Amino acid sequence: MVKRGLFVGRFQPIHKGHVKAIKDILKQVDELVIVIGSAQYSHGADNPFTTGERITMIRRALESENIPLTRCWIVPVPDLHIHMIWVSEVTGYSPIFDIVYTNEPLTRRLFIEAGVKVEPVPFHKRKIYSSTEIRERMLKNKSWKELVPKSVAQFIKEIKGIERIQDLARTDKV
Amino acid sequence: MVKRGLFVGRFQPIHKGHVKAIKDILKQVDELVIVIGSAQYSHGADNPFTTGERITMIRRALESENIPLTRCWIVPVPDLHIHMIWVSEVTGYSPIFDIVYTNEPLTRRLFIEAGVKVEPVPFHKRKIYSSTEIRERMLKNKSWKELVPKSVAQFIKEIKGIERIQDLARTDKV
Amino acid sequence: MVKRGLFVGRFQPIHKGHVKAIKDILKQVDELVIVIGSAQYSHGADNPFTTGERITMIRRALESENIPLTRCWIVPVPDLHIHMIWVSEVTGYSPIFDIVYTNEPLTRRLFIEAGVKVEPVPFHKRKIYSSTEIRERMLKNKSWKELVPKSVAQFIKEIKGIERIQDLARTDKV
Amino acid sequence: MVKRGLFVGRFQPIHKGHVKAIKDILKQVDELVIVIGSAQYSHGADNPFTTGERITMIRRALESENIPLTRCWIVPVPDLHIHMIWVSEVTGYSPIFDIVYTNEPLTRRLFIEAGVKVEPVPFHKRKIYSSTEIRERMLKNKSWKELVPKSVAQFIKEIKGIERIQDLARTDKV
Amino acid sequence: MVKRGLFVGRFQPIHKGHVKAIKDILKQVDELVIVIGSAQYSHGADNPFTTGERITMIRRALESENIPLTRCWIVPVPDLHIHMIWVSEVTGYSPIFDIVYTNEPLTRRLFIEAGVKVEPVPFHKRKIYSSTEIRERMLKNKSWKELVPKSVAQFIKEIKGIERIQDLARTDKV
Amino acid sequence: MVKRGLFVGRFQPIHKGHVKAIKDILKQVDELVIVIGSAQYSHGADNPFTTGERITMIRRALESENIPLTRCWIVPVPDLHIHMIWVSEVTGYSPIFDIVYTNEPLTRRLFIEAGVKVEPVPFHKRKIYSSTEIRERMLKNKSWKELVPKSVAQFIKEIKGIERIQDLARTDKV
Repeated sequence: MVKRGLFVGRFQPIHKGHVKAIKDILKQVDELVIVIGSAQYSHGADNPFTTGERITMIRRALESENIPLTRCWIVPVPDLHIHMIWVSEVTGYSPIFDIVYTNEPLTRRLFIEAGVKVEPVPFHKRKIYSSTEIRERMLKNKSWKELVPKSVAQFIKEIKGIERIQDLARTDKV
Repeated sequence: MVKRGLFVGRFQPIHKGHVKAIKDILKQVDELVIVIGSAQYSHGADNPFTTGERITMIRRALESENIPLTRCWIVPVPDLHIHMIWVSEVTGYSPIFDIVYTNEPLTRRLFIEAGVKVEPVPFHKRKIYSSTEIRERMLKNKSWKELVPKSVAQFIKEIKGIERIQDLARTDKV
Repeated sequence: MVKRGLFVGRFQPIHKGHVKAIKDILKQVDELVIVIGSAQYSHGADNPFTTGERITMIRRALESENIPLTRCWIVPVPDLHIHMIWVSEVTGYSPIFDIVYTNEPLTRRLFIEAGVKVEPVPFHKRKIYSSTEIRERMLKNKSWKELVPKSVAQFIKEIKGIERIQDLARTDKV
Repeated sequence: MVKRGLFVGRFQPIHKGHVKAIKDILKQVDELVIVIGSAQYSHGADNPFTTGERITMIRRALESENIPLTRCWIVPVPDLHIHMIWVSEVTGYSPIFDIVYTNEPLTRRLFIEAGVKVEPVPFHKRKIYSSTEIRERMLKNKSWKELVPKSVAQFIKEIKGIERIQDLARTDKV
Repeated sequence: MVKRGLFVGRFQPIHKGHVKAIKDILKQVDELVIVIGSAQYSHGADNPFTTGERITMIRRALESENIPLTRCWIVPVPDLHIHMIWVSEVTGYSPIFDIVYTNEPLTRRLFIEAGVKVEPVPFHKRKIYSSTEIRERMLKNKSWKELVPKSVAQFIKEIKGIERIQDLARTDKV
Repeated sequence: MVKRGLFVGRFQPIHKGHVKAIKDILKQVDELVIVIGSAQYSHGADNPFTTGERITMIRRALESENIPLTRCWIVPVPDLHIHMIWVSEVTGYSPIFDIVYTNEPLTRRLFIEAGVKVEPVPFHKRKIYSSTEIRERMLKNKSWKELVPKSVAQFIKEIKGIERIQDLARTDKV
């Protein structure tokens, strides 16, 4: 039987910490379902990229990092903001899985209450390999490219992602 | 004719101030509709308990406090976040009522604009008999049990409510 | 430990078949959760009555039939029309339950797939004790009162329910 | 004080019967609020035109029929499909009104139950001045232009409305 | 061909800066679509007025400022909170337009990404002609009437708008 | 530059006609985005399978038919039932695409109105290679396995799909 893990994130954007975690988890399971949460959101300070853009970045990262696509599933799941049903929603959108990998407190708690096995993700250099940190640096024109795979940095450039993030942060207030 | 009051709250969780208020209101009306607002929410800092858990706590509180079930109605109402329709939604979910008891400014204003009679709730020791205060104490392992009926404290223990609240407050940020 | 059953219906309106079923189930469990499905709907051919009206009818039926309120819970649940999450939604709105009583194929199947025990409801004279049949008779001014408890017939008269059903069935097409 | 009427329709599309009704109602009130219901829908058999297109057709009809814009309000209202809140939603989207003109059974009943005065619309030649009839003729390439104001027929041509309706009615089934 | 502009705002409430902008834009286009965003919201600190009230204020402002109704369209659009679809939603609710006038960063960015021409609005005395500033003054009983057209100040008085804003800002916390 | 096509379906379930179409389209484009529409639905007569089950079936079909995963993207998109925004939603969930392959009238029309290139799908033996036909046969215990890839038939057996479809078709009416 195939052993399958589930890894939930928003991937705004995917970074080297995510990639490292995916590689680590794939040592423990046969296949990994990468769930893109808050799938309907984009063009906001915390969610700048669309699901289509996030899927593209994840695919490029997997390819450039030699993680086989055949062992990964990429599944966007929109957020209904009703926590009591979230586990069911993820379960309904995902292929069957055996174990959830997450550090996020709400995801962890909801799956535990539903009786699903949850393991922490051993994040690498969590302080800098963080999407929040990366978006912050993008906004302030600080150095961020070294925190994501090259293929991802290239894609963000193609779609003018930095321009979007900086544009959205402007204000029309005086 | 039966005179019926309506009392809106989130009951996260129900506390002795709520119980005192219910008893006081029941001196003025024959029956009381206890509306559980934001019914779809749970597992959050402000809304830790599900509607099912909140209904259970309210029932246990009524029973242990000798408030007759036959004089109370417990009605969960989900929040649609569109204030202009909220009075209609509550009215559609509830048995007919004559008067609303609330101190909450939005509820009060909406019912007044709809032409419904609104009375304040004479809350007892409002500063400590407060769900916000209780959740804060639960989070920080301070003493909270004396603020809720014993039957409610017992139920929260049964469902490992403190563990949930503390779990959800963790962070995966560094 | 209390053994609790769950009985899902739309109760448009509650009839003697429902009442008989509730009595029968209460011989097998200590308490029964009566879930009012499609709670947000009303004023339609299949859902003429609001949740508030349905709660009122159920309460009156329980009272006039001497079914103790202390053994029943009445819980309205709005329909999100996403079947994969429905069991979670009901579970989140309801006090904990051990077994589901239903004949409705979708409800039955969803709870079975979720690993919940499901029992059929031994409906009495199903052909005439049917809400569909009753609404049909109401519409056509046929005899229907004998199919519901007297207290329910009385309530429907109070709220001019027949007038509403007949009004909604009119057409403005030529 | 200004006396204001409210006229609810979907206007898919507006036809000469609507125009006649608007003129008739404007003899009884100072101003008329024309509510475009089901505002979010378009590109369907029953709702082919977007709200933007329907607003445009109504404006053109008012102009070509010499009905003064200053006496009319055009207000799109999306449908939430929860009848118990619909009157509140319309009331919240519309300027204050005194009386509702409608033949539609549900609209009529909901406003009556809310205590609003409702009058029937004296539709002219209802059998042919009907949006359903017009869409049917459009679909089947029958003569329909004489049923709508010329300015409306012209607009439908501009946006290739007939092509859209016929396109949507195709099937990919064998 | 008619050249049509689109101007998006929440108009909570419309003020003299808006009016000046509308006049300025009408020098550059034949007609202007005034989109009332967040149409479903009201009775909140940032959105005190209903769409119906906002439409009324805009109409009164246009009339008292001698801006011809025949050159303006007022179109409420509810917010679905999904940015990727917002341009399509506005486009579907509005008559066809050629250019968008906005200073709001998100609106600007979304229309630009969709390939629509966007121009800034040359706001006059932006610091005081600001709805945020006006609501703040209303709340604190400071002078605000000179910031809106007289007809708007009069309407806000009629509907007891200040009372509503101050009422909603109360707290039931100790 | 990569040329990418988009193929929209509900895949309830994926069949040999779909597989043939995917192979044919992959002769014309470098990559194909397979959009699973109505992603939130399951456990219904027309939508028996969850998105997770449908993704699994598509992946198994691609693998057993030797269609390289590296050339395909599988993207579930929930249905918001607002046609005017659907193209934007699909565009936001999907990687960038150049051309849409579809026979479905609504999808075709919406993409054409949005200025996207649309090509028909040359379906093979459309009358029998049809999901509707397959679900009908499943329901009636007729022969259906030859219409889907073996790997798909095997998966449907694993999840007891036939039992689910037959169960849901039962009735509790007399």
